Amino acid sequence: MVGSVGNGLMDLGAAAAAVNGVGKGAAHPEAVAAALPMEVEPPARAGAGAGAGAGVEDGMGNGEGTPRREIVLGRNVHTASFAVKEPEADDDETGEREATMASVLALYRRSLVERTKHHLGYPYNLDFDYGALAQLQHFSINNLGDPFIESNYGVHSRQFEVGVLDWFARLWELEKNEYWGYITNCGTEGNLHGILVGREVFPDGILYASRESHYSVFKAARMYRMDCVKVDTLISGEIDCADFQRKLSVNRDKPAIINVNIGTTVKGAVDDLDLVIKTLQENGFKDRFYIHCDGALFGLMMPFVKKAPQVTFKKPIGSVSVSGHKFVGCPMPCGVQITRLEHINALSSNVEYLASRDATIMGSRNGHAPIFLWYTLNRKGYRGFQKEVQKCLRNAHYLKDRLREAGVGAMLNELSSTVVFERPKDEEFVRRWQLACEGNIAHVVVMPNVTIDKLDYFLNELVEKRATWYQDGGCQPPCIARDVGQENCLCSLHKKSYCRNLRCFCKDWSV
Amino acid sequence: MVGSVGNGLMDLGAAAAAVNGVGKGAAHPEAVAAALPMEVEPPARAGAGAGAGAGVEDGMGNGEGTPRREIVLGRNVHTASFAVKEPEADDDETGEREATMASVLALYRRSLVERTKHHLGYPYNLDFDYGALAQLQHFSINNLGDPFIESNYGVHSRQFEVGVLDWFARLWELEKNEYWGYITNCGTEGNLHGILVGREVFPDGILYASRESHYSVFKAARMYRMDCVKVDTLISGEIDCADFQRKLSVNRDKPAIINVNIGTTVKGAVDDLDLVIKTLQENGFKDRFYIHCDGALFGLMMPFVKKAPQVTFKKPIGSVSVSGHKFVGCPMPCGVQITRLEHINALSSNVEYLASRDATIMGSRNGHAPIFLWYTLNRKGYRGFQKEVQKCLRNAHYLKDRLREAGVGAMLNELSSTVVFERPKDEEFVRRWQLACEGNIAHVVVMPNVTIDKLDYFLNELVEKRATWYQDGGCQPPCIARDVGQENCLCSLHKKSYCRNLRCFCKDWSV
Repeated sequence: MVGSVGNGLMDLGAAAAAVNGVGKGAAHPEAVAAALPMEVEPPARAGAGAGAGAGVEDGMGNGEGTPRREIVLGRNVHTASFAVKEPEADDDETGEREATMASVLALYRRSLVERTKHHLGYPYNLDFDYGALAQLQHFSINNLGDPFIESNYGVHSRQFEVGVLDWFARLWELEKNEYWGYITNCGTEGNLHGILVGREVFPDGILYASRESHYSVFKAARMYRMDCVKVDTLISGEIDCADFQRKLSVNRDKPAIINVNIGTTVKGAVDDLDLVIKTLQENGFKDRFYIHCDGALFGLMMPFVKKAPQVTFKKPIGSVSVSGHKFVGCPMPCGVQITRLEHINALSSNVEYLASRDATIMGSRNGHAPIFLWYTLNRKGYRGFQKEVQKCLRNAHYLKDRLREAGVGAMLNELSSTVVFERPKDEEFVRRWQLACEGNIAHVVVMPNVTIDKLDYFLNELVEKRATWYQDGGCQPPCIARDVGQENCLCSLHKKSYCRNLRCFCKDWSV
Repeated sequence: MVGSVGNGLMDLGAAAAAVNGVGKGAAHPEAVAAALPMEVEPPARAGAGAGAGAGVEDGMGNGEGTPRREIVLGRNVHTASFAVKEPEADDDETGEREATMASVLALYRRSLVERTKHHLGYPYNLDFDYGALAQLQHFSINNLGDPFIESNYGVHSRQFEVGVLDWFARLWELEKNEYWGYITNCGTEGNLHGILVGREVFPDGILYASRESHYSVFKAARMYRMDCVKVDTLISGEIDCADFQRKLSVNRDKPAIINVNIGTTVKGAVDDLDLVIKTLQENGFKDRFYIHCDGALFGLMMPFVKKAPQVTFKKPIGSVSVSGHKFVGCPMPCGVQITRLEHINALSSNVEYLASRDATIMGSRNGHAPIFLWYTLNRKGYRGFQKEVQKCLRNAHYLKDRLREAGVGAMLNELSSTVVFERPKDEEFVRRWQLACEGNIAHVVVMPNVTIDKLDYFLNELVEKRATWYQDGGCQPPCIARDVGQENCLCSLHKKSYCRNLRCFCKDWSV
């Protein structure tokens, strides 16, 4: 079992060593694994704001003042990589090269199976079967430039792309002849595009975004040289509109460009779009605002949740983006960006703008991703997604309840399938289940591939491990009241109040 | 034969109509094809600078003052797309949905085969076999964030990515512990990254780029709010360093950020890197410049061309980017970006920079692309690429010579496999061979998959068609002297001088 614990790359470490010509015949693959880039540098606490945080997309690290992982800048890890080596002159005859490569790939595939099985922390639906599309891997499919404008390069998939875009435009209630959009490489590209459109509509606009927005939003501000104001959040992770109002009031002279989170990265919190719009309008920003909705994950879940506030272009929003590899599931990152055609036309009528009619960020664009999306949307349809969303929400509630029953502080936002809980003490456990962590909290994002069985497997292991971590009483589970509120914290300090509130089964708690 | 001429999507047009529920039972697929996005809107001449040009990546459209295609802004073409339709309740039983989808995919695959076969205009190597990697399509592989920094998401391919990056760093002579880089989504992302690094090194720097630079360079300037100065080009397409000097001399107070083209999009011209550096140094910019080398296509060919000026980090350059789907060949667009580690460390030491340690543009990154690249680099090696480069250059010379023999004006830069020639009169022919055109010129990029047989097929068809286009003498082939120089033009005006120079086989000319 030791071999299967950890990041599952132990064998690969050995394979890498063999390919790289080091450690040949090493008797202990563990020795090699110790040097793997994912194994080294266990997280240490660094002072907030000291140097750089280890924020990664869909991971965590945006919270200011919270402990961050220490990163060794510029650490260049090569020991675990599969070096590219010049083929020997006689390789064609001996076939040795092919054999080595096949063996590396087979081991790598095994590690992918293992890693996919033990994955819980990132909002990726890992359950998909695109066997029918394997036939297309032989083609260099490239939707270069605009989805709606002809290119002479014939090996493209615009027919599928536009079909997918239409589906999303319908979902968000924008007419075919009133929208523009394209299939992006990831959620970040959607945010980069939405905020760029906002800036071009209001060149002197100030960008507002809650502190818990995805880091790509702040990256955009920096890239685009925009003034950016961070807005406080409520304990749920939602934008605090009282603070938003305060910040608007001192910048009344400049238009507002707002990033609205339809599901934050860490807590899955959904900003109150209606309240954001109301706050803008009541503070004299009637027509001087542009709203980009970052719907990376929940943009595709919310429409299927009853009572959820709707994201729709019938409200005065400018753009919405969603990821394709998250709820839909896709072998590679991708996303969908939908905006109002009038904005793109306004941009394009500026002759110098982008120096071309290509209003995408990337130019050359992956032509396979639209076909993957088209395939899944066609197979599942609205009804299929609705069922999956319901299942995810149900399973997320199950996880939260089971965690609390086990004495683990946990929070689940009403419209979310992201369960936030006390960070497991042991980093090996965190890596094994690929949990994204920030400070004292971790989260599990319940995706369609996360079954009750998988959750039980995880829960049982967590409970078992916790019993050993905290067995001698010298060490206590962390307090997460600051992150998720006292009412959701079960640390030694807050357990009692929680208990009083619930008048419940404290006796069952394992801690 | 009619069916195979055109964009090969006629049958698909019919399929789209069937899927969309329109035109069911239409007797004439041609009627549907007429509404395809690639078929409509034959190019018309629009005044230079009027509205927007039809520049697409790897296409053309950067030349100022040259005629451009007219684009109907915001035209939203949906008739040819494959709509996503809600499955019927009984679809699971009837299997009708699956059958329709399979039929759409089969027809689409057929069109891809046809389009791949007739492709000549874009610098994509369409000859690859990644059958061994089909097993990986089942996994959601995502190298999110930095290639060298651990992420808890375990389903990644950093081991392959770093191996590939090492190979390129070695190619461009930068030590393992001195470089930083990542595998991008396309050439544009490389340019966006390189120029961003340049701007962060010199925040008040002015961006210089030749007029024939890829449009993404000017897009970057706009996105990043940088001052940008366009530099003239020589007839070959290379940057004109005399003009560069003039433009530097009036901006001595600001540092210079320069985009150097290692192969321009249209003419495959290689800017003289050494002369660019010399010009900078002689004009007082000793340490106040940053050079980004856009090596989209030739970045990977030049190292294998004898006598070619070398792109190397031993010269004072800051970054190099190259595309992965071009010379290497890959099912999806991708690229490699290599820069100096010191620049990335400098950026990252700025706490607020990018709001995270992720110095990539995109965040979530395609984990399959690195494996494709790793696979090809391992199989072919330096020697394999060298052979392919030599073959491409040889075949490009063959094409240029045969064109001239046939009386077609043509140019081929010394270090290039891009053959520029007179634009074919008929747009159907242009689309059939997927030629990228600008004004009066078109080009063929001779890639490893372009054989002599394919070139002969193309040449024979061109000669045959030309005979009909120009048979009555009322219409003459266009003059391309302004684009490629008098010595390469064979229009009625310049033919004689060309003939005098060559004292050659005028009698053989078909025109």
